[in-house]
Amino acid sequence: MTCIFCDIVAKRAAAHVVMDEPDVVAFLDARPVFHGHVLLVPRGHVETLVDLEAKLLAPLFGAAQRIARAVEEGLGADGTFVAMNNKISQSVPHLHVHVVPRTRGDGLRGFFWPRGRYADGEAAVFADRLRSALAGSV
Amino acid sequence: MTCIFCDIVAKRAAAHVVMDEPDVVAFLDARPVFHGHVLLVPRGHVETLVDLEAKLLAPLFGAAQRIARAVEEGLGADGTFVAMNNKISQSVPHLHVHVVPRTRGDGLRGFFWPRGRYADGEAAVFADRLRSALAGSV
Repeated sequence: MTCIFCDIVAKRAAAHVVMDEPDVVAFLDARPVFHGHVLLVPRGHVETLVDLEAKLLAPLFGAAQRIARAVEEGLGADGTFVAMNNKISQSVPHLHVHVVPRTRGDGLRGFFWPRGRYADGEAAVFADRLRSALAGSV
Repeated sequence: MTCIFCDIVAKRAAAHVVMDEPDVVAFLDARPVFHGHVLLVPRGHVETLVDLEAKLLAPLFGAAQRIARAVEEGLGADGTFVAMNNKISQSVPHLHVHVVPRTRGDGLRGFFWPRGRYADGEAAVFADRLRSALAGSV
């Protein structure tokens, strides 16, 4: 099994690397939503957010913070969109955090639409199921 | 200044809370992309990801991991979309991590489209600007 992000981490594949640290590597997405769209990955191969070792949480998301700041300060973005697809819509099965530059009026306003509504009592049922699942995981 | 998420954290406003811990609180988004869509917030008010204290990185994103697992195991989702809007498209200026249940064929395939391309040499310029900005922040 080959993994293109492991290849980029190991420098076997070319990419515009912007951060290369013991725990994480970040590089430009070759097909950006907007120019300057960065992908941040843990150096070691893990598939999704759930699979990340606890000791890598702070290094990975601390790096995401620094990249988000760099996107604003270095590229003049007004804000950022920071996102992970886990399993569904995940093009490469190596955990990657998208950091996408956002600017006012960039047309991505609709990212989280359309939104739905809960019927009476329905939200309570979903909350119960989540609390039960969480109770087993703490 | 009132903040609806601070109000939910303080139990001054109603919400379907699914996690209530010293550092973080999570509750159902009242207007979900899909049923079971959770918003996870740090208990203390900070505006965006960049503003989060380093000591809260592991508690917040460790909670995001547990919620993502609960969404899969408790709701039968095939995967999750985990995302933050920082400043642009951020409806409430209190950092919140969306954890959205995803299922195959749910129609959100297009979340990250359309994608662009870099002209010759253009990616190198963007990477340089990001590396320069990052060099000032490490």
